[in-house]
Amino acid sequence: MTSPTASFENSLAGWARKLAPSAIQDMLQKITRPGVYSLALGLPAAELFPKEGMAEAAAKVLAEQGGALQYSPTLEPLREQVVRLMARRGVSCSPSQVFLTTGAQQGMNLLARLLLEPGQAVLLEDRVYSGFQQVLDPFQSRRLTVRRDVERGLDLDGLESLLASGERPGLFYTMSDGHNPLGTSLAMEARERLVRLAREYRMPVIEDDAYGFLQYEEEGVLPPLRALDSQWVFYVGSFSKILAPALRVGWVVVPESLVFRLATVKESSDIDTATFTQRIVLAFLESGGLDGHLERLRKEYRLRRDTLLRALETHLPAGAKWSRPSHGMFVWVELPEGRDTTVLLARALETQQVAYLPGQAFMVNGGRSAAHCMRLNFSHCEPARIEEAVRRLGGVLREAQG
Amino acid sequence: MTSPTASFENSLAGWARKLAPSAIQDMLQKITRPGVYSLALGLPAAELFPKEGMAEAAAKVLAEQGGALQYSPTLEPLREQVVRLMARRGVSCSPSQVFLTTGAQQGMNLLARLLLEPGQAVLLEDRVYSGFQQVLDPFQSRRLTVRRDVERGLDLDGLESLLASGERPGLFYTMSDGHNPLGTSLAMEARERLVRLAREYRMPVIEDDAYGFLQYEEEGVLPPLRALDSQWVFYVGSFSKILAPALRVGWVVVPESLVFRLATVKESSDIDTATFTQRIVLAFLESGGLDGHLERLRKEYRLRRDTLLRALETHLPAGAKWSRPSHGMFVWVELPEGRDTTVLLARALETQQVAYLPGQAFMVNGGRSAAHCMRLNFSHCEPARIEEAVRRLGGVLREAQG
Repeated sequence: MTSPTASFENSLAGWARKLAPSAIQDMLQKITRPGVYSLALGLPAAELFPKEGMAEAAAKVLAEQGGALQYSPTLEPLREQVVRLMARRGVSCSPSQVFLTTGAQQGMNLLARLLLEPGQAVLLEDRVYSGFQQVLDPFQSRRLTVRRDVERGLDLDGLESLLASGERPGLFYTMSDGHNPLGTSLAMEARERLVRLAREYRMPVIEDDAYGFLQYEEEGVLPPLRALDSQWVFYVGSFSKILAPALRVGWVVVPESLVFRLATVKESSDIDTATFTQRIVLAFLESGGLDGHLERLRKEYRLRRDTLLRALETHLPAGAKWSRPSHGMFVWVELPEGRDTTVLLARALETQQVAYLPGQAFMVNGGRSAAHCMRLNFSHCEPARIEEAVRRLGGVLREAQG
Repeated sequence: MTSPTASFENSLAGWARKLAPSAIQDMLQKITRPGVYSLALGLPAAELFPKEGMAEAAAKVLAEQGGALQYSPTLEPLREQVVRLMARRGVSCSPSQVFLTTGAQQGMNLLARLLLEPGQAVLLEDRVYSGFQQVLDPFQSRRLTVRRDVERGLDLDGLESLLASGERPGLFYTMSDGHNPLGTSLAMEARERLVRLAREYRMPVIEDDAYGFLQYEEEGVLPPLRALDSQWVFYVGSFSKILAPALRVGWVVVPESLVFRLATVKESSDIDTATFTQRIVLAFLESGGLDGHLERLRKEYRLRRDTLLRALETHLPAGAKWSRPSHGMFVWVELPEGRDTTVLLARALETQQVAYLPGQAFMVNGGRSAAHCMRLNFSHCEPARIEEAVRRLGGVLREAQG
């Protein structure tokens, strides 16, 4: 058995968990088969990885640092670099509040373990990154939801009513910018109100900012929640999307008093982060390579986003709507109610070799309210391929209508 | 706050958990201070890491493999290499039974999560690698113990009585070769009887073979438990001790039917192993570099072990006894009953700048029966330093007696 592509598995988790392993394998093989026009997975563009910069960084680390391959404490200088990165997001923090992790997924896992008391409920948006649902699985927590959609954003009235009714979730998980799967960002007033509610009701908020540095508009960049509150907002960051996923280097920003407890929980999971890859990231950052790299990434991803949005205008039948992301990697498409994108996916693969993820994959508690939606990725494929994928998708949708 | 050295933290865990973070920090700083003659930590010798081979492997991976930095499925070719490694240990298995992990610690963590049912007890040897106790902490399982000591080995009569009395532990954790902290290996009859009991009572055994490839005697190498049973023995292996810890690459060998479940649990922890470092390990193994490297390691560690054993003969006061390891990195020293090695450590550090780990650090449930023991590491320091460390330690012990 070959193991599934991780981010794919994550994207599918909520949806595919009910399938037999063999059915997941089957679907995976179909979606990742060479030749398939796939907008399904949340993958960065491999051709944009700074491979030479990484190779130089790796060679430097091995040549100059005697302890590069040894067990070692977490790297203070890398935590200092993270502090500088955070400042660019408008967040003021100190190295003693930064905890390095094996990617953002581990950050979320450790925070959940730290924050959740047995029996406590968790609060999720009703369309949510399914990797976070996987994080929650071992806890068997009751899952409360609050509506989040493209038009109306996060339903803060609903959130407030829920808290006012006496619910005390152990955590609320959200993404302020480049939401996965919606592709949307929170408005400033929503950020401010959310943080006020978190304080008032003492509700910890896990802010997953995996896409915060991938912004495509010059104007209107807003601070993450962590910039508005340092006590109730637990920030999760990652180099996976801005450098490379296979390095598995991420971080969390938390009150200093929690760092030691996080370290204890982490040690029981995997002893230590891969400090070798941490050192490579550090050497790359110290070389000053990140700025130019981020600029290239943003320019190319902006082009791909625009290509996708234009292609949707051209090829999708009337009645379809979609988000226009300022950040991240995804566009969320809503077909008219009643369409079933899970059923359509099988046909899309079979007749047009085109793939996406059905909205169903992102629902909490097996809900069906996104059964007519789909998530499209624009970071992975080159523009011409995106254009062709959407042309094919349009064909599938029109055919299904006719 | 600087974060502690991971393996150190692990070694101390059971013992130090009751200390305040500041006290642990204080002790850590004293033990790892430059100039201290430390036999405390379980560190490989950094000067023996195959740095050039690793640098070549890293350069090759980045130059030749387009997906090296991308999310990716686990590496089939690395699992095939692990199968070949396992064959050298006398274990026959297939790539579909091998699951790659972020170091051995993650392997144990995933297995515990998979095997333990809520409320189930676990069975440990009464002197046990404290990192495994850390793995267990989140489960709050009742901890049963069975005696294991240098003279009599593993108390299989006790183990059998316990099982016959109706206890049904969810797992038993053991090391067949180069036991941490005892430095001993199980006799062949003990291996066979243990496996028979595991089968008879359907008790899963986690076999931690971190030191199995570090053997120093030509004669009498025994097969690990996994060679005797493929159903009840869950094998944990690691490249940390035979290549380098900072790569964080390990593996487990389990029945094929469990691999998919392990993948699901792992994804919730950290999405995926750092495939970049997996690829480096693979390229190194494919270059054929491991054989020569293992030979160098064994030769040098054998020399260091012999140096340590000779120094103990020369410098330790009468009444002290110690193990004579055929594998691994540790010698276990027993002082006459009544001595307290935790108290002695403070004095050893203060007056002679010499460090070890007190037996207390490896006890289950805060037991005191190893309060007169200490673990000495022989892999990390060069021979002259080992000799000097033991000379100083002998001075401390004689002074304390006098």
